Amino acid sequence: MQESKKIAVVGSGLVGSLLAIYLKKAGHTVHVFDRSPDIRNIEFSGRSINLVMSNRGWKALEDIGLDEAIRNIGIPVDKRAIHLVDSALNYQYYGKEGEAIFSLSRGILNRKMIDLAEAAGVEFFFEHKIWDVTLSDATLHIGDTERGEWDELQYDLVFGSDGAFSRVRHRMQRQSMFNYSQEFLKIGYKELHIPANADGTHKLDKNSLHIWPRGEYMLMALANTDGSFTCTLFMPHEGENSFESLKDKETLEAYFAEHFPDTADVIPDLVEDFFKNPTSYLVTMKCFPWTYEDKVALIGDACHAIVPFYGQGMNAGFEDITILHEMMQKHGNDWETIFKAYETSRKPNADAIAELSYRNFMEMSSKTADAKFLLQKKIEKWFSEKHPDKWLPLYSRVTFSLRPYAEALALGNQQNAIMEEVMKIKNIDTLWNSEVVENKIIDLLG
Amino acid sequence: MQESKKIAVVGSGLVGSLLAIYLKKAGHTVHVFDRSPDIRNIEFSGRSINLVMSNRGWKALEDIGLDEAIRNIGIPVDKRAIHLVDSALNYQYYGKEGEAIFSLSRGILNRKMIDLAEAAGVEFFFEHKIWDVTLSDATLHIGDTERGEWDELQYDLVFGSDGAFSRVRHRMQRQSMFNYSQEFLKIGYKELHIPANADGTHKLDKNSLHIWPRGEYMLMALANTDGSFTCTLFMPHEGENSFESLKDKETLEAYFAEHFPDTADVIPDLVEDFFKNPTSYLVTMKCFPWTYEDKVALIGDACHAIVPFYGQGMNAGFEDITILHEMMQKHGNDWETIFKAYETSRKPNADAIAELSYRNFMEMSSKTADAKFLLQKKIEKWFSEKHPDKWLPLYSRVTFSLRPYAEALALGNQQNAIMEEVMKIKNIDTLWNSEVVENKIIDLLG
Repeated sequence: MQESKKIAVVGSGLVGSLLAIYLKKAGHTVHVFDRSPDIRNIEFSGRSINLVMSNRGWKALEDIGLDEAIRNIGIPVDKRAIHLVDSALNYQYYGKEGEAIFSLSRGILNRKMIDLAEAAGVEFFFEHKIWDVTLSDATLHIGDTERGEWDELQYDLVFGSDGAFSRVRHRMQRQSMFNYSQEFLKIGYKELHIPANADGTHKLDKNSLHIWPRGEYMLMALANTDGSFTCTLFMPHEGENSFESLKDKETLEAYFAEHFPDTADVIPDLVEDFFKNPTSYLVTMKCFPWTYEDKVALIGDACHAIVPFYGQGMNAGFEDITILHEMMQKHGNDWETIFKAYETSRKPNADAIAELSYRNFMEMSSKTADAKFLLQKKIEKWFSEKHPDKWLPLYSRVTFSLRPYAEALALGNQQNAIMEEVMKIKNIDTLWNSEVVENKIIDLLG
Repeated sequence: MQESKKIAVVGSGLVGSLLAIYLKKAGHTVHVFDRSPDIRNIEFSGRSINLVMSNRGWKALEDIGLDEAIRNIGIPVDKRAIHLVDSALNYQYYGKEGEAIFSLSRGILNRKMIDLAEAAGVEFFFEHKIWDVTLSDATLHIGDTERGEWDELQYDLVFGSDGAFSRVRHRMQRQSMFNYSQEFLKIGYKELHIPANADGTHKLDKNSLHIWPRGEYMLMALANTDGSFTCTLFMPHEGENSFESLKDKETLEAYFAEHFPDTADVIPDLVEDFFKNPTSYLVTMKCFPWTYEDKVALIGDACHAIVPFYGQGMNAGFEDITILHEMMQKHGNDWETIFKAYETSRKPNADAIAELSYRNFMEMSSKTADAKFLLQKKIEKWFSEKHPDKWLPLYSRVTFSLRPYAEALALGNQQNAIMEEVMKIKNIDTLWNSEVVENKIIDLLG
């Protein structure tokens, strides 16, 4: 066990809560601060996309014995259900038999994580606003308003798990040699709601991630345990078919009737939800370094906010904890070395999942509606089943393996180049599962 | 003339001062704020690289009749003088006969610009620290300290010309959909000094930009009118041959004796300068948008800080003013349209000069010491003189023309691709000015 430290964790989200449990179990005193009220006492809805837990997330929970507690509050999802405008549903399985991601409501999961952290002995301080941090001595500056009186609280270590708009990072950003970028997508999102049937059952298949892919925009839905679905509309903020263009009830209803006809029965409160719920922004944020000496470290969205299209935001943040914990075990009380090793290991992988997530919007919103793309996926799946040692599809490598994201990105690029060649084969529609294709792929794999 | 507005310009640097003159001459009331004391009353030295004015800068001065006032305080520079470790000096002319850039001391130029602005009726408020700006009503928040009491001053328009670490931009950065990046080079710089001879003459050729190219690091010097040179050492912050590694008098002297032997006579106060002057950082900063409604606009380094290796930082900032002024003449009192047209026109060009400046470090520090590169430049110059309609060297297009930077970047890329082919010609050393080469280039130009 390490020498006991007094540690502040800024942000009581999923990563902050889980990190706090790890630190507490390693023998430290852990205080978690959050500017918002306790999420367990307030209604949480209206601006979230359901989360999906996959292998990297489970690994961090399993290592500390919390996976069973979480498995009870979510729903396994083993495929995409693709809703085209005028045809039957298409299903596309994510992985092999038995492989699934796990749909979780952010509110329910976060409440559970805070319960678990409190049970482990972590102390939470809600409605405590951290406005600044003195990096050299890990001192937090806390107050009601940014321009009002502040109190100072000194710790041995401070973790910034305070999300994409992190105040802890904000201070680090003013240091020389701190690289930083924030880039907003032209696409925003809005939460909508598919309620349960009267008998508590789901209106759509609960074990599917439902997508209505329409190119520049798309709708998706993920099941909750109460029979409802959290539904998310992604579309440009401005221009044609944009949030800006759907300005009244009539336009909105006509738009949904035209583009998402099969949702009429399942989203009864469309108009109310649409105009009540905020339109949210999507940002990719990168920075480096992530740590300051042996005093301060960023983790999760605070140092690598990504767009949600690979369902890896929480998983990447939880994997940060796995790696940090590994470094804690390796380097004992030498926090400067722990921090350096942690950021050096994680940075290339954070950049890789940012890139993969960005690319996946195109896959979800456009390509899933494209017959050629679906054929390509079918070929990859078929070849991968015949030669599991030669080909693990990119989605599986990201989602169902623990191999580094950077490796997945590099191999994914190689696979894309190969499949581009394969799809050029004459009569590929009929030849797709022939020896010609099999040998071509083996040949191109080198 | 436009309807008269009350305008605040934040930052009294070169761009802020010149912008203020333009605005004042357009009939507005103009207040310039700066957090620092009046540069005219303090010693200014120790952390600057000399500036070079070239055609874009001159254009902005000429349009408002200020070019003659500036020509008197600088020195024309028509070539690079390349100092290798153990050979005679090489000279590389920048352009055609009579084409030159203009070396100016930042302190002297800035003082002159403020004098000119005051003479035009601009009011300056030094030691007034702007900490924040309310974008929606162009209100400045001014106070002695960031956490102390602030006063509010409301304007019709606010310009942020407050440099790479702009407080005005800092507020805009907190808006949704504001894209931003800052990226530090591993290379830093330090000012050194070559004094005048006893009789006031220059110790080196004053009409050359002197470079000591050494790969990962380099020294350069630009003349001042008082017979001195401002000398700048560029090298990595850390690692081998870095600022960090030159930690005492002995190491420093041995290092200069080995790598810059011919500077021993001309930099007498090397040790004192080196350890007294700060090591400065180099950052590329990009952002977008640059404006907020009809209220606030960023200009110069505040929206596009670049590294200094093309000598275009000030020129790009002055060209911002030329374009803004063009839009003011075109769109009358419609400031929202003026601002939109200004940022739309400038953004791609700011990105292009950022890229070109970044690339030019390699050219200055490594390639100028490379015989093959010097031959390539010789071929380009020869071909360009024979076919001025077909080939304007990239440096000339950036420095001696007013064509957009983005166009220069695109054409530069094309020229690089062509020269790569040309340099593969067998016996190019002897054939360099032959018909074979001439026809090859014409052929590749298509």
